[in-house]
Amino acid sequence: MTMTLYCFGESGNAYKVALMLSVASQDWQPRYVDFFNGEARGEAFRKLNPMGEVPVLVDGDEVLTQSGNILYHLVGKTERFGGSTPTAQKEVWRWVLWDNHKLSGQAGTCRFLMNFLPAEKRPEGVIPFLQGRLKAAYTVLNDHLATRDWVAYDEPTVADFSCCGYLYYPEPFGFVRADWPHIDRWLDRVAALPGWKHPYDLMPGSPADRTGGK
Amino acid sequence: MTMTLYCFGESGNAYKVALMLSVASQDWQPRYVDFFNGEARGEAFRKLNPMGEVPVLVDGDEVLTQSGNILYHLVGKTERFGGSTPTAQKEVWRWVLWDNHKLSGQAGTCRFLMNFLPAEKRPEGVIPFLQGRLKAAYTVLNDHLATRDWVAYDEPTVADFSCCGYLYYPEPFGFVRADWPHIDRWLDRVAALPGWKHPYDLMPGSPADRTGGK
Repeated sequence: MTMTLYCFGESGNAYKVALMLSVASQDWQPRYVDFFNGEARGEAFRKLNPMGEVPVLVDGDEVLTQSGNILYHLVGKTERFGGSTPTAQKEVWRWVLWDNHKLSGQAGTCRFLMNFLPAEKRPEGVIPFLQGRLKAAYTVLNDHLATRDWVAYDEPTVADFSCCGYLYYPEPFGFVRADWPHIDRWLDRVAALPGWKHPYDLMPGSPADRTGGK
Repeated sequence: MTMTLYCFGESGNAYKVALMLSVASQDWQPRYVDFFNGEARGEAFRKLNPMGEVPVLVDGDEVLTQSGNILYHLVGKTERFGGSTPTAQKEVWRWVLWDNHKLSGQAGTCRFLMNFLPAEKRPEGVIPFLQGRLKAAYTVLNDHLATRDWVAYDEPTVADFSCCGYLYYPEPFGFVRADWPHIDRWLDRVAALPGWKHPYDLMPGSPADRTGGK
């Protein structure tokens, strides 16, 4: 049965799941959520996910939320990208959690404030604070990737799909690939996986849609 | 073999693990990390955990980091507090991830800025921003607990231990139990579990130690 991913192009958290679905050749369709007009915080969507967040994956009778949890579900379903040993599996979840806490958790907010919130609504002082925290996270990831090809194991796993969630977007939020050479080369490796696509090519919705360009 | 938890009393993320170890009657000992004098960011500690973060659990040959990942390990080891069905297990991980991203991830930072950083170093505007995000998280959790006793299942799980990580501390960071009655009663239920202890009674280190009081 075709899975449905509630998503929108600008969501790096949704991208993590869309990327896994694409690279693992799953039968799925995107369902656009009009986040910027408040759909994710509306009553109808809250019935689907009381957390008011994208992504949501509907797989038969199961309604799954939280990108890391959906990835966990898809590892179980596909038996791929989860790490092949119990030790590797824990290493995968360690990095998925780190990403949620330290990398994507900060990057998503920073990118939103810098690109999708009117300048007059931007809270003073928050962007430099988030960028400081992000710099510490990029340092950890870049150092980690200095001696290895993939984040958690000797082959790609959902830890890679999670950590790269916000790192292919063109809108500026303080991440410059050239500053982090090991991350830069790892992003090239992820992008070379069969089935890889850019977030705006994998999910409906992008800033260009809203401004009429593209 | 006795497990060692690298921790300090003020860390709500370490508390999540210490609480699980205590409630599940495990053989463990705390090893104090002098976070406020930089030990977690020092070279020796980074050899143990390159992420430079507490908690770290050493269990025999395994060195585990990220509270959610350590809880996952302990669920496997103890066969307790993980939810008893595959659906419940996913619900547990959904809430552990949500907590890392939306609740503890913000609360830990806000509490640090408000209580452990000298006033002149506090970044302007960040505390109200974090408190706004936290209010949205408290609302989700409080509404969720209006009709249920435990966060993820019909009995306590590590989702409860994760979500309560920062909510028993006395230092102010904008969370007032009386404002959130369903969270308040759930915290009483968690505190009534055999083996429950307050973070400052379960791990070495508290603000009182540093000021000479207690």
